[in-house]
Amino acid sequence: MELSLRVYQIVSILISIGAILMAYWLYHWVKKQECPHERVNYIGGLIKKGAETFLKKEYSILARFTIVVTIFIFVFLPVPVWMGNIKDNLIMAIAYVFGTIFSAIAGKVGMDVATTANTKSAYASTKSIRLAFMSGFRGGSVMGMAVVGASLLGVTLLMVITGDAGALISFSFGASSLALFAKAGGGIFTKSADISADLVGKVEFDIPEDDPRNPAVIADNVGDNVGDVAGMGADLFDSHVASLSAALVLAVAIDSRVGNFLSTSTVFCYAGLGLFASIIGVASARMDENSDPTKALNTNTYLTTAIYGVLTAIATAALGLEWRIWIATILGLLVGVVVGITTDYFTNDDKKPVRLVSEASENGPAFTILSGISYGFMSVVPAMVGIALSALLSYLVCQPLGEGYAMFGIAMSAVGMLSIVAMIISNDAYGPIVDNARGLVEMCDLGDTSLEITDKLDSAGNTVKAITKGFSISAAGLTVISLLGAFISEVNISAAANGIELFNGFDVLNPTVFFGLLVGASIPPLFSSMLINGVGKNAQLMIHEIHRQFKEIPGLREGKEDVLPEYEKCIEIATFGALKELIPAGLMAILATLIVGFVGGINAIGGYLTGNIVSGLVFALFMSNAGGLWDNAKKYVEAGNHGGKGSDAHKAAVVGDTVGDPFKDTAGPSINTQITVVSLVASLAANLFLIFSIF
Amino acid sequence: MELSLRVYQIVSILISIGAILMAYWLYHWVKKQECPHERVNYIGGLIKKGAETFLKKEYSILARFTIVVTIFIFVFLPVPVWMGNIKDNLIMAIAYVFGTIFSAIAGKVGMDVATTANTKSAYASTKSIRLAFMSGFRGGSVMGMAVVGASLLGVTLLMVITGDAGALISFSFGASSLALFAKAGGGIFTKSADISADLVGKVEFDIPEDDPRNPAVIADNVGDNVGDVAGMGADLFDSHVASLSAALVLAVAIDSRVGNFLSTSTVFCYAGLGLFASIIGVASARMDENSDPTKALNTNTYLTTAIYGVLTAIATAALGLEWRIWIATILGLLVGVVVGITTDYFTNDDKKPVRLVSEASENGPAFTILSGISYGFMSVVPAMVGIALSALLSYLVCQPLGEGYAMFGIAMSAVGMLSIVAMIISNDAYGPIVDNARGLVEMCDLGDTSLEITDKLDSAGNTVKAITKGFSISAAGLTVISLLGAFISEVNISAAANGIELFNGFDVLNPTVFFGLLVGASIPPLFSSMLINGVGKNAQLMIHEIHRQFKEIPGLREGKEDVLPEYEKCIEIATFGALKELIPAGLMAILATLIVGFVGGINAIGGYLTGNIVSGLVFALFMSNAGGLWDNAKKYVEAGNHGGKGSDAHKAAVVGDTVGDPFKDTAGPSINTQITVVSLVASLAANLFLIFSIF
Repeated sequence: MELSLRVYQIVSILISIGAILMAYWLYHWVKKQECPHERVNYIGGLIKKGAETFLKKEYSILARFTIVVTIFIFVFLPVPVWMGNIKDNLIMAIAYVFGTIFSAIAGKVGMDVATTANTKSAYASTKSIRLAFMSGFRGGSVMGMAVVGASLLGVTLLMVITGDAGALISFSFGASSLALFAKAGGGIFTKSADISADLVGKVEFDIPEDDPRNPAVIADNVGDNVGDVAGMGADLFDSHVASLSAALVLAVAIDSRVGNFLSTSTVFCYAGLGLFASIIGVASARMDENSDPTKALNTNTYLTTAIYGVLTAIATAALGLEWRIWIATILGLLVGVVVGITTDYFTNDDKKPVRLVSEASENGPAFTILSGISYGFMSVVPAMVGIALSALLSYLVCQPLGEGYAMFGIAMSAVGMLSIVAMIISNDAYGPIVDNARGLVEMCDLGDTSLEITDKLDSAGNTVKAITKGFSISAAGLTVISLLGAFISEVNISAAANGIELFNGFDVLNPTVFFGLLVGASIPPLFSSMLINGVGKNAQLMIHEIHRQFKEIPGLREGKEDVLPEYEKCIEIATFGALKELIPAGLMAILATLIVGFVGGINAIGGYLTGNIVSGLVFALFMSNAGGLWDNAKKYVEAGNHGGKGSDAHKAAVVGDTVGDPFKDTAGPSINTQITVVSLVASLAANLFLIFSIF
Repeated sequence: MELSLRVYQIVSILISIGAILMAYWLYHWVKKQECPHERVNYIGGLIKKGAETFLKKEYSILARFTIVVTIFIFVFLPVPVWMGNIKDNLIMAIAYVFGTIFSAIAGKVGMDVATTANTKSAYASTKSIRLAFMSGFRGGSVMGMAVVGASLLGVTLLMVITGDAGALISFSFGASSLALFAKAGGGIFTKSADISADLVGKVEFDIPEDDPRNPAVIADNVGDNVGDVAGMGADLFDSHVASLSAALVLAVAIDSRVGNFLSTSTVFCYAGLGLFASIIGVASARMDENSDPTKALNTNTYLTTAIYGVLTAIATAALGLEWRIWIATILGLLVGVVVGITTDYFTNDDKKPVRLVSEASENGPAFTILSGISYGFMSVVPAMVGIALSALLSYLVCQPLGEGYAMFGIAMSAVGMLSIVAMIISNDAYGPIVDNARGLVEMCDLGDTSLEITDKLDSAGNTVKAITKGFSISAAGLTVISLLGAFISEVNISAAANGIELFNGFDVLNPTVFFGLLVGASIPPLFSSMLINGVGKNAQLMIHEIHRQFKEIPGLREGKEDVLPEYEKCIEIATFGALKELIPAGLMAILATLIVGFVGGINAIGGYLTGNIVSGLVFALFMSNAGGLWDNAKKYVEAGNHGGKGSDAHKAAVVGDTVGDPFKDTAGPSINTQITVVSLVASLAANLFLIFSIF
């Protein structure tokens, strides 16, 4: 049965709308859960207010940035406005603006519900683990559904309206540039607060995590929401859009050569079914009163994966799609799962790495760091080989289909990996919600059973998070490889139009390519350096503030009734610091790309993108995994091993966790977005590099 | 004036012999310096014996490794012995053996003189700083002269005897495979001892560095010799041989096409003049009683650089060599100096990075680590851009000369960077000698003036070391880029012989190349991980041993007269541990290359080498610089800043230094050698990959 492209697009739009309606329903389900506890609502209100204030300030800065970029895009892209058709430039500019708006809304919605769901989950934990789990999970699902629904809807509408895959790159750039800053800003906020709360609270004064006497405790909870929820939502929105855009650019090129719409249709079909499978997965997610929350989360993921595999197989058979493309897609998904599982080995506290790092902590913090870095370096290998293999295999599987299909196969492998991303986001956003809930339980004294329940839920969140991180880095890796394909496809369209010789590829023995390679490879460490530095500086400022409060507010240290710290001061420091450090790192990456492109031309940029991808993946994997490892090693010690809380091993493990914090939640995951942004900037400016470069 | 190739070769041989005679003269100068102090000689003897024992055991393991590899080479290279001419295989095997022997001798000679010069310098410090300096510097110069003399002599003789540049690759592989293990083994030994001596001595018991009560103190001093002297000598021997080999392979290819010997002659001319300039530099090195040792060392370097520039310019004019090649050579040298100076910025305690890391230490070790890592990441950028620029510029400068010259230009840029390496080694080996001398002064109670003098000499050694490290990593970078050129030249000779299509380059959009790229990029982190892990494990074992001795030997802790710790126990632990961890990391890198080559073929290996170079440079720079930074931040605190010795900031700074130790002295500099070894293995096995690979 052959369907027209329009049918695929309409179905995609319907599924997207379905996901958005589902998000709406889940949102209301969460809102109508009860939470009559006054203090929970009061503290929850503080968290909500802090998060909203930060997001508002962040968005107002980003709005100004967006306006400037929009003007640039309008004037210069796809070609300078005086050289081309003004309508094309207008479409590019509008697509960009929509990308930023969709991304901003996705982050905002996710955060809104997360800062409601935390109180519901906290209160529910006084009654049943099942209810507490459902509040957390459904709260997270709102963002999952909203993000992927918005992504698919935006991409499909843009294709329907403009019929031009080039505008998608601009839309995708809008999404990813906003994600870059949201991720960086949120990441700096959350880790400045987290680190200083931990170091002063746990290490110096030996008071529990989330103790209400700690002036940074609310800032820490706000951080979970602006960093892990809003930032992460923007990040995965961007990955999903980028993978669809790369696939569609390559598909349109194939289709226009072959003279049908099969490849384009395939992209919509598989992406739509991925979202559909996730809707089923989310709707059917349950947890028994006595079962394990980790198992519940993982079961959902595997279920969704299975549904997706079956649905796409049926669709491929029934609609006459290419089986080879289907294989590439499934390959991507499976490799994602495998990489997730190997990543888990390095961060799971049942396994050797976490155990040995905990043990090494007995000899002091230097050994915590050395052993953690050592395992972090090692953890790079399986994921790199996995990404390399899935790229190679999907290329080889699809090559026999003809010209252009091989690279399209890689792109579809990325689409496959990200197909169930709505489910992944739901699991991921569940984490900070139950983490917040745990904090509320502690701060509002809801009792030991509640604390036990929320501890269990929180720990499940951490375990699942490690897996999804491996997943999302791999997906970003495959996406940017296919963006490299999209880049050269854009370059050649422009080269053909300008009568310049076509580019066959980028030879590393060409010194311009090699030059780009070395420069591109040094961007991720520089970018990480700036973010880590930002976290370090802010955390030190906040530590001084916490010390000041403990010294100057009488009765605070002793926990006298009715004496509360000045929470807002810490929130202000985190907000101000994050906003200051937000722009430079991202801007550096974008400007470096433009400089290399205008100086060295297409060959330099080809090398630059390659170097950036390779070194970016290595650094992202290293930092995310090392950070996760240290976090769990600390938790393992806190669980009573190697002397438990308060022991020297614990102090050393906290140092490891502190170093790991900006690794895993600021720099590591931001690199994902950095490599995507750089690839998109290159594709967008390909024309300009071709015409105006010096060499 | 045109000279025949033979004349250039004879002059090279004469200069090499001159350098070796100079080494001999310096050796005797050092030996005849007086040191009548009994205790200095006793402790010096312990150090010498420990170092010799380790080297003997290490060499006996490496001898077995060498025998196995020799058999492999004889059977399989350049083509399996049953397919080709047995004489060719024999030459390859013999060249390999000679490479290992020369490298081993260079390391042994350097260490012998270093373990004599340390006592002379220590005793001289009781009389005059000038004499103490000269003992240290001339002791280091022995190795400088011996290493570069042996390298140039070996390479020239091999070319004269076989007339075949291919055998050079095998010679170079012999040198670098030995260097890889010597560097790794020595690095693990020295840092296990250093870390445990520091952590127990300085942090736990608050006793000074080099206190004779510390059971690990002799092991630490032995480590300086086996790691920083013998290991580093083998390493720079390998870099020098590799740069000459790559240049000669490319020069022979050009000459055989053009029909003269000009390019080959140029290599010998510039390399010979580099050694000649270094001989003058070493011979004229002096230090006034009141001047600054850092200045004295740097003056020598700049003087040698200037002499080299002038001599090569005269030779180029007089002998009718190509000016463009000269420019590439000088470009390399200048970039080396510039990279050295920028590296210095990140590790000099007058500059912002060291100051800020010291300051951050006041807030605890987590901030020491975070800020150090952050600056370490940043420090990657100038060197990467410098290497990229010098490769690009020398390529562009030499390209107009015709086919093959562009890549030859890059190779000559590396030769230029390494031209004054004899001087660099002299400065570098000076460091551990005066470091040892300082230890002897402390252990033998030679008085405060002596301690002050040796402290000053030691600090000069550290400053210069940071610069030479940036230098040697850049040189390795350029060398391996030109080895990539040599690799494809070898591949194409073999492809032509087998009637296979020639390779034009490696396109990153080819999925096999990209596969190799990702896998190759993950080797340096894995390799580093294994070495760091080795250091961590051994240091922890040694800490237990130190604790045991302090507990079980009565009077040791209190410093009772005639109570000495069991130094040998710590030396044994370091020796045993280093020997156990020596082989796996290096073997992993070699085997991974063979696997990728036999599975993925030439394209996969091209990508693999590229990925390995790019990620290797990033990791080597990051680790060397971060380590140097932490070392100097600790020294800055110890100099009385931020609370000085014993303060919390000091404890935090020691943690930073401990983490930095294996970074800067084990993993970081070993990566240099790892990328060289991998490139050479690929060149050697190019034939086999071409014939036998699966894809």
